[in-house]
Amino acid sequence: MMLSCELLIIGSEIIAGKIADTNSGFLAQKLFDMGIQLTRITIIGDKKEEIMVGLGEAISRSDLVLTAGGLGPTPDDNTTAIAAKIFNRRLILDESLLEQIEKHFAKIKKKMPEALTRQALVPQGAVLLENPVGMAPGLILKNGTKTIILLPGVPIELEKVFVSGVIPFLEGSYSLKPVMTKTIRTTNIAESEIFEKISRYFVRHKGVEVAYLPQHTGVDIRIWTDKDKKLLVACEKEIVSRLKLYVYGFNTTNIEEVVGQILRKKKLTIATAESCTAGLVADRITDVPGSSEYFIGGVVAYSNEIKKLVCGVKQETLNKFGAVGKETVLEMAKGIKEHYKTDIGLSISGIAGPSGGTPKKPVGLVYFGIAMKRSANFEERIFSGNRRMIKEKAAMAAIDLLRITLESGV
Amino acid sequence: MMLSCELLIIGSEIIAGKIADTNSGFLAQKLFDMGIQLTRITIIGDKKEEIMVGLGEAISRSDLVLTAGGLGPTPDDNTTAIAAKIFNRRLILDESLLEQIEKHFAKIKKKMPEALTRQALVPQGAVLLENPVGMAPGLILKNGTKTIILLPGVPIELEKVFVSGVIPFLEGSYSLKPVMTKTIRTTNIAESEIFEKISRYFVRHKGVEVAYLPQHTGVDIRIWTDKDKKLLVACEKEIVSRLKLYVYGFNTTNIEEVVGQILRKKKLTIATAESCTAGLVADRITDVPGSSEYFIGGVVAYSNEIKKLVCGVKQETLNKFGAVGKETVLEMAKGIKEHYKTDIGLSISGIAGPSGGTPKKPVGLVYFGIAMKRSANFEERIFSGNRRMIKEKAAMAAIDLLRITLESGV
Repeated sequence: MMLSCELLIIGSEIIAGKIADTNSGFLAQKLFDMGIQLTRITIIGDKKEEIMVGLGEAISRSDLVLTAGGLGPTPDDNTTAIAAKIFNRRLILDESLLEQIEKHFAKIKKKMPEALTRQALVPQGAVLLENPVGMAPGLILKNGTKTIILLPGVPIELEKVFVSGVIPFLEGSYSLKPVMTKTIRTTNIAESEIFEKISRYFVRHKGVEVAYLPQHTGVDIRIWTDKDKKLLVACEKEIVSRLKLYVYGFNTTNIEEVVGQILRKKKLTIATAESCTAGLVADRITDVPGSSEYFIGGVVAYSNEIKKLVCGVKQETLNKFGAVGKETVLEMAKGIKEHYKTDIGLSISGIAGPSGGTPKKPVGLVYFGIAMKRSANFEERIFSGNRRMIKEKAAMAAIDLLRITLESGV
Repeated sequence: MMLSCELLIIGSEIIAGKIADTNSGFLAQKLFDMGIQLTRITIIGDKKEEIMVGLGEAISRSDLVLTAGGLGPTPDDNTTAIAAKIFNRRLILDESLLEQIEKHFAKIKKKMPEALTRQALVPQGAVLLENPVGMAPGLILKNGTKTIILLPGVPIELEKVFVSGVIPFLEGSYSLKPVMTKTIRTTNIAESEIFEKISRYFVRHKGVEVAYLPQHTGVDIRIWTDKDKKLLVACEKEIVSRLKLYVYGFNTTNIEEVVGQILRKKKLTIATAESCTAGLVADRITDVPGSSEYFIGGVVAYSNEIKKLVCGVKQETLNKFGAVGKETVLEMAKGIKEHYKTDIGLSISGIAGPSGGTPKKPVGLVYFGIAMKRSANFEERIFSGNRRMIKEKAAMAAIDLLRITLESGV
């Protein structure tokens, strides 16, 4: 039978939106990789009744509940006492824990506040998990087939206790089957189009699950199975063969890493000439360590003057076709390539909005140019969204145009 | 009686730890400011049964439930149908919504996938909330005193729909006592320093609460009260007077908006010359609509060749002081100002890492130069973190140097 597991995050500050909960993301990911799929994450305040209800519900639904927070010394910290109550245990003073706390205060030469004695009270039969960076240890409390694991709420403490104490406990207590997973990253294709192209595959082939993660610069397709590695590989192949060039990479690889690898392999250099993306393409390309090997530099040609000055765009081109047009981006791409003496010139000009659009050239219209050794090409796209989104989509499309040009071997 | 409200976040990817949930933090904060204190946040997967149970429980506990996610066109997207079922409503085709979706596809010149028809099915009696940046509108579904508000899961869409649709609805439907709140935004000062400077104030003055929100580019200080507006204003004044120039703005105002306002007011133009930030400063400056009024253009001078070619940095300067140094950034700033004929030149050169550091010039070392009409200045900073964090911190510091220079009236 599958182990059912959920998280209970305790923190009034979180449900008031004052601090972000990062613990649940950390725990969810670590548990998933170990083969434990959460069914639920609940975030509640730190009032006694809330914790009592929240923890009571969670442990009645699930075999294993991990909590974060409410282990400190103040009267707000009630998680331990409530966990003890739910499993019908008494709280007893743990002498060695008290000694540790006293030692800590001796070390930092401060007097131990009386309230801290409270922190050495642990439920009878609990296993203590050492906290190397804080005062509150983790606790494991078992009752028949049910287990509650109490963790401190400070992220760094939670992470340390989880890695050193919880992982060994879980691996020793349950027979876990780590999940095999792969992420297939796409751009320039909508979630619904992907769905149309690949969904039938999943109807036929049981055993691999799929999820779509749409972001505004592309859709990640995640497939996973706990059955057979071969199944996953076959599924990945099938998806890639159906989506072809829309697929730019796998797992956590970014598109800028993909183009970086190709540029490095082909020993090609590149320069950018950006108008509406205003440096974002260069910024992304240079997020890759070592990108200075192939990225020589760029220009943010925001005004027409700079388009002429740095990229050698002709005044007559601007007069005739405007700053946003096929001819202009081609001249920009060729111009920057020549001026910066690179193998490739990549250019972007468009209307990021919110104003500046016309019926013929609406907000979101972006032209891309790419100049290679012996050829040049352009692309016209139209994007929706606000100014920032249009910039991000356009930057992604520019790098994708570069990728496709490089991959098609021009 | 107090309104009880909770959130239901739907996303298998979140409970599998594959993507972070930012929606609950956004909603918790906004609702808190309006005077609605959440009692619970639940995050569940997107299977039908899970949503049915999660939403059913939530709406039986609370007057108001907001959901995020599961409104898309794929069979994974079940939230709307389940909300309809819980309130015993039929799904009906909303013709105007279908028309909107069709129009969207006509605009981007793509064929509408058949699956999208599903997205125009809405529960009978639901109020639609326009989604200006995506295809799935928000929905309000009332049943007696109980209300479910369905929001799209893509953060930018959720935020837009919340601000334009949900806030007016909540304000019109419930008698809320908003918490008065103000965010004071700082940079270039650590949380602990801020705490030392201002914490005593909060010990003396009851009635205003404070929270510190550290990000790697700065710390936001959030103060709030449900008592007296005057208290809040006095507190804000006190904080600003203690932190002085570290404060760059308030509430959601970004530093690029602050400098944009000053540049526009003073009718000054600017150009950037970036090495390690590689376009990120220009990207941020141009995130402000209308920034083309004062931002003329920039150069990403990644290689030394481009530093010489475009910014007129002398070979001997590079030989003597290297690419990362006071003299180089001053020549870059002056050079780009002259070359692009602007009032201000802003330059950045540093070591973003992970490699390229030396004992004398370690990873994270960044120089900034600013050239004005009659003066030029530089700054040396050292940042910690990975490559991306160093780029972001350096871009923030560059724009902050610009702000302080402009505010000190040079």
